[in-house]
Amino acid sequence: MENQKYNLGLETLTKVDGDGGHKVIDSLNSIAPDLGKYIIEFAFGEVYNRSGLTLKQRELATIAGLTAMGKCQPQLKVHINGAINVGCSRKEIIEVIIQMAVYAGFPAALNGISVAKEVFNEVDSMSE
Amino acid sequence: MENQKYNLGLETLTKVDGDGGHKVIDSLNSIAPDLGKYIIEFAFGEVYNRSGLTLKQRELATIAGLTAMGKCQPQLKVHINGAINVGCSRKEIIEVIIQMAVYAGFPAALNGISVAKEVFNEVDSMSE
Amino acid sequence: MENQKYNLGLETLTKVDGDGGHKVIDSLNSIAPDLGKYIIEFAFGEVYNRSGLTLKQRELATIAGLTAMGKCQPQLKVHINGAINVGCSRKEIIEVIIQMAVYAGFPAALNGISVAKEVFNEVDSMSE
Amino acid sequence: MENQKYNLGLETLTKVDGDGGHKVIDSLNSIAPDLGKYIIEFAFGEVYNRSGLTLKQRELATIAGLTAMGKCQPQLKVHINGAINVGCSRKEIIEVIIQMAVYAGFPAALNGISVAKEVFNEVDSMSE
Amino acid sequence: MENQKYNLGLETLTKVDGDGGHKVIDSLNSIAPDLGKYIIEFAFGEVYNRSGLTLKQRELATIAGLTAMGKCQPQLKVHINGAINVGCSRKEIIEVIIQMAVYAGFPAALNGISVAKEVFNEVDSMSE
Amino acid sequence: MENQKYNLGLETLTKVDGDGGHKVIDSLNSIAPDLGKYIIEFAFGEVYNRSGLTLKQRELATIAGLTAMGKCQPQLKVHINGAINVGCSRKEIIEVIIQMAVYAGFPAALNGISVAKEVFNEVDSMSE
Repeated sequence: MENQKYNLGLETLTKVDGDGGHKVIDSLNSIAPDLGKYIIEFAFGEVYNRSGLTLKQRELATIAGLTAMGKCQPQLKVHINGAINVGCSRKEIIEVIIQMAVYAGFPAALNGISVAKEVFNEVDSMSE
Repeated sequence: MENQKYNLGLETLTKVDGDGGHKVIDSLNSIAPDLGKYIIEFAFGEVYNRSGLTLKQRELATIAGLTAMGKCQPQLKVHINGAINVGCSRKEIIEVIIQMAVYAGFPAALNGISVAKEVFNEVDSMSE
Repeated sequence: MENQKYNLGLETLTKVDGDGGHKVIDSLNSIAPDLGKYIIEFAFGEVYNRSGLTLKQRELATIAGLTAMGKCQPQLKVHINGAINVGCSRKEIIEVIIQMAVYAGFPAALNGISVAKEVFNEVDSMSE
Repeated sequence: MENQKYNLGLETLTKVDGDGGHKVIDSLNSIAPDLGKYIIEFAFGEVYNRSGLTLKQRELATIAGLTAMGKCQPQLKVHINGAINVGCSRKEIIEVIIQMAVYAGFPAALNGISVAKEVFNEVDSMSE
Repeated sequence: MENQKYNLGLETLTKVDGDGGHKVIDSLNSIAPDLGKYIIEFAFGEVYNRSGLTLKQRELATIAGLTAMGKCQPQLKVHINGAINVGCSRKEIIEVIIQMAVYAGFPAALNGISVAKEVFNEVDSMSE
Repeated sequence: MENQKYNLGLETLTKVDGDGGHKVIDSLNSIAPDLGKYIIEFAFGEVYNRSGLTLKQRELATIAGLTAMGKCQPQLKVHINGAINVGCSRKEIIEVIIQMAVYAGFPAALNGISVAKEVFNEVDSMSE
């Protein structure tokens, strides 16, 4: 059953975060593999598979939270990619970040936009 | 034109945060009325009236951000009420808060749920 | 197997946080019971049962983290009780909080000490 | 010499924070007296007695920092009193808090203003 | 009138943050130009033009807040430059950052000093 | 006596943080030497020499706090080295960081592990 959760989580991680998510898990293999296992089983196997919100809504909430906290640039990058992967428009992503200017201040929003710009540029250069 | 922004903001504040929002603005009158003016003009007159996200999406993003930051209980309370006012379901609100457990830790989620519980109880007792 | 994890977690939660932990879980029943389930299964069933640190070390690390973050007073209260339950001395608890003055500033340490004082007083008044 | 620092710090604490500061130190006596000693010797004996900024400037910087961090309401209260004690005007205090809306968001500013209001009301009721 | 606010804000941004501020606004043009417009209109057109504090005081408060929050290095860099532009001495800037060691911990102060060092070195190398 | 504290602090800094600690102090010499003096006298001369916790316990608490705060990567690096210097095992360090996933979220733990990996790799490459 634990195994089912792992497999479900891996599938969801792949759908949401794609390569970026797998790179995070792989980078943990040599030092803290169980942390990767928890991310797969708990975050993606459990939380991301709950009903009540679509994957798009979960990714926009995650972008809001990470932008407001403002000290998780690598994770924000993974989840802006994730948001695109599950169908959020660039406009939605940018609007969520701008919304955070009101609640977490302009620096948080500016730093979030700067990560979004980096992701959008990478996506554009890959599709060329 | 400035006046138009103020009037539009006041209208949006009323639609979103209702009484809770007006109480915040009123509480500023004797000490820092311009801070209330900025909240009306900039936050509600400008940001909340942008296209690209529905009011429901803006409120869920706000709940995500405030829960993750975890030190803004009075504002979280106002915006959980706001989310209900613009049509978010209780389930959506709770799911956004649970999603934050992954990114900001369990204490942030627990404290967010505790505010949600308080708001839901108040709403229930008013409708009795 | 999932069930085993839940049972193990419940046992560990009881050993570590005692009544305080159960109250947190119970308070979630009417609003977000799965958040309680995750705390039992993931936090206490998985993380707290890892090898490499004693329960005493885990509780002191938790007190350090919560004091430094400085916005989780209810959880700090539960875990100062938890630290006592698993055998940490009051001196160890206070020293961990004082250590945080260096890294998170005096207000964080002062607010941590204030929670410790509340817990110690409650413990003393119960043992009278 | 250590003693000189303590005495100088106590004098500065008295000048800046008055009763509020002494209450903080006294509250530590039964549980972590050395934390009080460090606040007197290091914060007030050393840092507050440095050249380069006036006490007014130090208190306004402290109010800015505590408002932006947004999780230190008891300390913000002490230092808004402190700012008044060393000659800051209410307008200066409020303006520093409003300035933080730009950098830390509106909730941080609102919560700072709410502490300022409490302090100003207490000062007014004492002078009646 | 909106336009007046924009023009006033642009003038103030130029006076305070000079090239650094314009670079921030320009970097937003291709992705979120309205965020730049809000920074000019609201932050610099409104808040920075309020009475009650000098521009020097506003910049020192901003440095205090950003140092204490400790996750806004690019913005801290812009505003240390800004503080120099409006007449703050290097000593005042350094003292505000040291003051934050007391309230936000030594890492926050160390990281603030490290940004100040970078800015001072850049200023020195440009004036050679 | 002040001098005794400085000498004791320098000795402790050398024992705990070794080269990394001295580099931090040296980097302050040209810009804010007193901040280095405070770190030596107060942090290492006073706090690190208190009874009640071993140096190992102090370093693990510091790693917990810095990981949870999540915006102090340079200091976390110094103190993971410090933890190794005073005898903490790599397993203990990793477990403290994993413990923080529960309280500060997965991004905080991931960023902490990433610093640990960097330190462990540097230690390994030096011992080759």
